[in-house]
Amino acid sequence: MRLISYRESGKPGIGVMVDDERFVALPTVAPDLPREMRALIEMVGGFARAAEAAQGRMADLRLADVALDPVVTVPNAIWCLALNYKLHINETGLTTSSQYPQIFLRMPCSQVGHLQPILCPDPAVATLFEYEGELAVIIGKGGRHIPVERALDHVAGYSCYNEGSVREYQSHNRQFGLGKNFEQSGSFGPWLMTPDEFGDPAAHRIITRVNGIERQNATTDLMVFGVPQLINYLSQGYYLRPGDVIVSGSPGSLPPHPGETPPPGRPGKVYVPGMVQMKPGDVCEVEISGLGTLRNPVAADAPARYQTSLYTPPGTGR
Amino acid sequence: MRLISYRESGKPGIGVMVDDERFVALPTVAPDLPREMRALIEMVGGFARAAEAAQGRMADLRLADVALDPVVTVPNAIWCLALNYKLHINETGLTTSSQYPQIFLRMPCSQVGHLQPILCPDPAVATLFEYEGELAVIIGKGGRHIPVERALDHVAGYSCYNEGSVREYQSHNRQFGLGKNFEQSGSFGPWLMTPDEFGDPAAHRIITRVNGIERQNATTDLMVFGVPQLINYLSQGYYLRPGDVIVSGSPGSLPPHPGETPPPGRPGKVYVPGMVQMKPGDVCEVEISGLGTLRNPVAADAPARYQTSLYTPPGTGR
Repeated sequence: MRLISYRESGKPGIGVMVDDERFVALPTVAPDLPREMRALIEMVGGFARAAEAAQGRMADLRLADVALDPVVTVPNAIWCLALNYKLHINETGLTTSSQYPQIFLRMPCSQVGHLQPILCPDPAVATLFEYEGELAVIIGKGGRHIPVERALDHVAGYSCYNEGSVREYQSHNRQFGLGKNFEQSGSFGPWLMTPDEFGDPAAHRIITRVNGIERQNATTDLMVFGVPQLINYLSQGYYLRPGDVIVSGSPGSLPPHPGETPPPGRPGKVYVPGMVQMKPGDVCEVEISGLGTLRNPVAADAPARYQTSLYTPPGTGR
Repeated sequence: MRLISYRESGKPGIGVMVDDERFVALPTVAPDLPREMRALIEMVGGFARAAEAAQGRMADLRLADVALDPVVTVPNAIWCLALNYKLHINETGLTTSSQYPQIFLRMPCSQVGHLQPILCPDPAVATLFEYEGELAVIIGKGGRHIPVERALDHVAGYSCYNEGSVREYQSHNRQFGLGKNFEQSGSFGPWLMTPDEFGDPAAHRIITRVNGIERQNATTDLMVFGVPQLINYLSQGYYLRPGDVIVSGSPGSLPPHPGETPPPGRPGKVYVPGMVQMKPGDVCEVEISGLGTLRNPVAADAPARYQTSLYTPPGTGR
């Protein structure tokens, strides 16, 4: 089963995909089910009820009819991995522990859904806005001190993630902090695919494209810490909760394509030859084999001018 | 004005303190006002209405009558500062940028309110559970690209924060990740004090005590990046939202007291002679001059055994 989170006329809903474009709208066929993914995951037997409600139904809507939200709009936690693929470690020249994963956090407002624009910072703020195509794991059953051999029992599903990063801010100091949490700088979608359809998380391929040109292409068996190890590690200190997200790290870059001139190195910054920057007008895609493709246009963030309001800005996943 | 977040019979409420122990319960005197701090901060004129409702009223309840929550239970973001006091930088021997602050995130479930137990990890998991007494800044009016000279206009109030840290996990790799986000490992309270009463955030003293013995004692003018600079920096990439929290960093440790033997150094770990570990049965206090004292007993976290449930565990601020 593949499930999406969407908004139609501002109201949230969950859909069950019938093909790559059309879905059954659960608010129509099962109005008693939760309208938000985290609540559906928390509900005992929620996925089974969604499957049953959609079983044999014609699609109600197309993706183009709605606005897609991140697969889980407001998870309790979005745990992210730094340097979890060997090629990426090598190309950055950075050191990392071989014994423990390197973990940081993203906030829900730093991500958007499939087909929604991701925001490139104003050039007065930063210019090194870069993609990271990653496999996202969505937790189903909560747990603490989860053994490696039981870890995959705690997965509700998988999705694609573009862990968009503002490199200048990421490298301002030792902790990544703000550079991984710019407004609407990343994306999460198109859908959650359940483990029975996705299979082994270590047996897939991730491909990232900018304007149709491949920039990353690697298999998930190359993760330094695999999905079961990550679940085990995080649950040593934290009670993993239904709907939590683990973004399992970026593979390395492909080398520059023939005829491309690598940009000059940047003093004091990590420099990766095949990595290109995203600019307004670009389209970035993260495809995971057997799952689907997360696609986002890149738009310009608002100019770097003082803005103030008493209210939370719109479109930030809250 | 000093405002608390509390639960009584499981229902949330906001109180206006009349002295250090007693408060006017807003759900009683102003039932139309929001019952959660973030919503009250988001409401236009919310604080003025709370002040008006409490004006001249007798206290309804005492702190001991209720369970205190973190001052803001579920903020959109808890931004934390690493190495923001010179003595703390020196004592750790770590390097940090002098140009940009060092930022990481905590999650709401890693903190509890005043008088609630903070959880010391099971010894099978970790033994280096340490306090960090800090000044917390709570954002009022939201904003982006906030100039330094307007930054304090965006503050709703101040509070104390114990940024409890599990050092083994913090030093597992380069990003702090899990070590700063153990379940209920930190605390935030006792109350929010509005800026008209608190005054200049750079003109206060922070004292941390374990079992009544002073372990940290420093003035907030020693911050490397002051509160206005932090607000300016974060808002360059992120739309600061009402109720957001900035935890402004830990001062250094006092040296061991006469007669105390510093524990032996620990290989590969940062070693600070006057720093002691919190153990179940201890009481940890963070006092900020002119504001008050955040006090928490230390309790033992559950044993390191596999636990699982479909539901979010209780008492985690959600």
